Amino acid sequence: MMQRGEDFRTIWLKPDDPSVVQIIDQRKLPHEYRVHELGCWQDGLVAIAEMYVRGAPLIGATAAWSLYLAANAGGRAEVHKAAAALLESRPTAVNLRWAIERILVLVDGHAENVKLVDKVREDAEAICDEDVKISTGIGNHGLALLQAIATRKNGATVNVLTHCNAGSLATINWGTATAPIYFAHRQGIDVHVWVDETRPRNQGSQLTAWELAANDVPHTLIVDNAGGHLMQHGEVDIVITGTDRTTRCGDVANKIGTYLKALAAADNNVPFYVALPSTTIDWHSRDGIREIPIEQRDPAEVRDIYGIHNGEPVFVRTTASDTPISNFAFDVTPARLVTGLITERGICEASEAGLLGLFPEMAAT
Amino acid sequence: MMQRGEDFRTIWLKPDDPSVVQIIDQRKLPHEYRVHELGCWQDGLVAIAEMYVRGAPLIGATAAWSLYLAANAGGRAEVHKAAAALLESRPTAVNLRWAIERILVLVDGHAENVKLVDKVREDAEAICDEDVKISTGIGNHGLALLQAIATRKNGATVNVLTHCNAGSLATINWGTATAPIYFAHRQGIDVHVWVDETRPRNQGSQLTAWELAANDVPHTLIVDNAGGHLMQHGEVDIVITGTDRTTRCGDVANKIGTYLKALAAADNNVPFYVALPSTTIDWHSRDGIREIPIEQRDPAEVRDIYGIHNGEPVFVRTTASDTPISNFAFDVTPARLVTGLITERGICEASEAGLLGLFPEMAAT
Repeated sequence: MMQRGEDFRTIWLKPDDPSVVQIIDQRKLPHEYRVHELGCWQDGLVAIAEMYVRGAPLIGATAAWSLYLAANAGGRAEVHKAAAALLESRPTAVNLRWAIERILVLVDGHAENVKLVDKVREDAEAICDEDVKISTGIGNHGLALLQAIATRKNGATVNVLTHCNAGSLATINWGTATAPIYFAHRQGIDVHVWVDETRPRNQGSQLTAWELAANDVPHTLIVDNAGGHLMQHGEVDIVITGTDRTTRCGDVANKIGTYLKALAAADNNVPFYVALPSTTIDWHSRDGIREIPIEQRDPAEVRDIYGIHNGEPVFVRTTASDTPISNFAFDVTPARLVTGLITERGICEASEAGLLGLFPEMAAT
Repeated sequence: MMQRGEDFRTIWLKPDDPSVVQIIDQRKLPHEYRVHELGCWQDGLVAIAEMYVRGAPLIGATAAWSLYLAANAGGRAEVHKAAAALLESRPTAVNLRWAIERILVLVDGHAENVKLVDKVREDAEAICDEDVKISTGIGNHGLALLQAIATRKNGATVNVLTHCNAGSLATINWGTATAPIYFAHRQGIDVHVWVDETRPRNQGSQLTAWELAANDVPHTLIVDNAGGHLMQHGEVDIVITGTDRTTRCGDVANKIGTYLKALAAADNNVPFYVALPSTTIDWHSRDGIREIPIEQRDPAEVRDIYGIHNGEPVFVRTTASDTPISNFAFDVTPARLVTGLITERGICEASEAGLLGLFPEMAAT
């Protein structure tokens, strides 16, 4: 089992071998903790495309480290070749494009290959460090919300509900939605997390439950259907989710099912917060439901479920083989259902005014 | 494959052998259609307790037929012995108690054993016939709703969303929530059903999808998280679910997750109807959220998922073995979110006034 806490990272350069980058093969969790080695940029491409790694920040960091491997192997030409291939690996991931373009600017601004590798390495490290800083900012701002609830409840358990995995495993460390939870737990606040299973890919039961357990944070797994019932009965003090994209007006695209939890929160006066790095704000879109395209994924994700049988990892088919299936990956929660947005700069209302209050430099965008 | 339609039943006396009752072993669906024989009342007990059969009406009918087997084997004394055991098999099933008490009244009112068997058989048959009549009534009344939508849409597809299985398999035939759908389909209305998977037991993917396919009704399986997104985008014209218990004031207890779909329907102006036999109305309770106890079931239902691997039915464990799990079976949808109740006597508002309008004889209850 790995060491967690301050020193934990989801991607790192192999100790004593700077030609290899290491990641966790997240497809195997929670049944197996396996460190996977990226020896060339093509390994990084596979890791992104086949979801050894997922989560926008970690995808971006994996692309950056893949370009480092390319620079190491073949200099600028190889970096450009790798960049073109990596851009196609997960077309909707905003951070992927951002990280690749950042490294390309760096690479094209330098002349010599030996120094180039060092420069790319430094920038890949900087991308990771910056992400940890963002998660830390989100964690500190969100912590204040949990502290306030703990005070109001006179130290009784603070129950947080979360959907999908906006956790350490989706970032470099701490996560976005989970950062306030980890910080509260480390401060001694009695925090407990209701973990939505998150069908169809079960990121809740397979990733969020795993990383909360690894950090000794009390938690209980529930099916996605259960959150409304818990809120009706006062068992949820706050909902915190992540987001894949937030519009300028505060509409939030996130894992399918998030909208249903936001409706239940509103119906039961439970605060509903969304944690996000400001890099995932789409300043050019306003109406999330109309403007954000929702990816439809392989029906096999619904049909075939991964688990352990007789000690072996297998997929089982849960439906008749000819059942028609539709598999929407995300939904949009309108800003009116979002109590607030937790960013690295602070917490704001889910509105254009709220976001521009924290990010005034974007007013002219 | 069995014959469906008019002649289909979920429980029947074996042709040419009146000492045996036959059922479908629903645990094997959709992967295997297996007829299971009940040769004694103890077999019926196992079938109910281990969920070979489920759904309140079918549970009641299975208990009635089990008492017939008891009468056949040992007369009145055996019927009483069987009744005591059957009452304990699914303690929360209202129809179970109702069917057993009805047969006991009959048995205690008759003297001689030979006639007794015939009387019990006739009453078990009557219980089944009455249930088909109830489903037919619900089907005809609900049909009018779907006809109206089809007319409004000028014959374009009528999209119905349903949760869990309130289908033929839960009753004797036609189901409750599905009866309007089957009747519309037989009338040539272009009806399509969004089938919620219904975690944790997957009654949607395993039972509802199976029976809709067996009746050639177009349908698409979705995860429980997806309904809100579909409603936001105009892909759902009406939601119809079943219910386990409805209060005098129209609050509806049904499979966990129903409440979340009702919230999404209300938020998107999609009509949300609940189909129910009047036998499931609890005239003595008013506030569903406060008064209806919600069963917590085995965490293994969430953890271990049934499916097919290499052609064999298996369970896979989807979580870490030590993940804490909570498994609430039902939730309560408040009457304010229910557009109407479809009963065998007609459709009414989800309120005391609405219900008493259809069932005035209950006013003094």
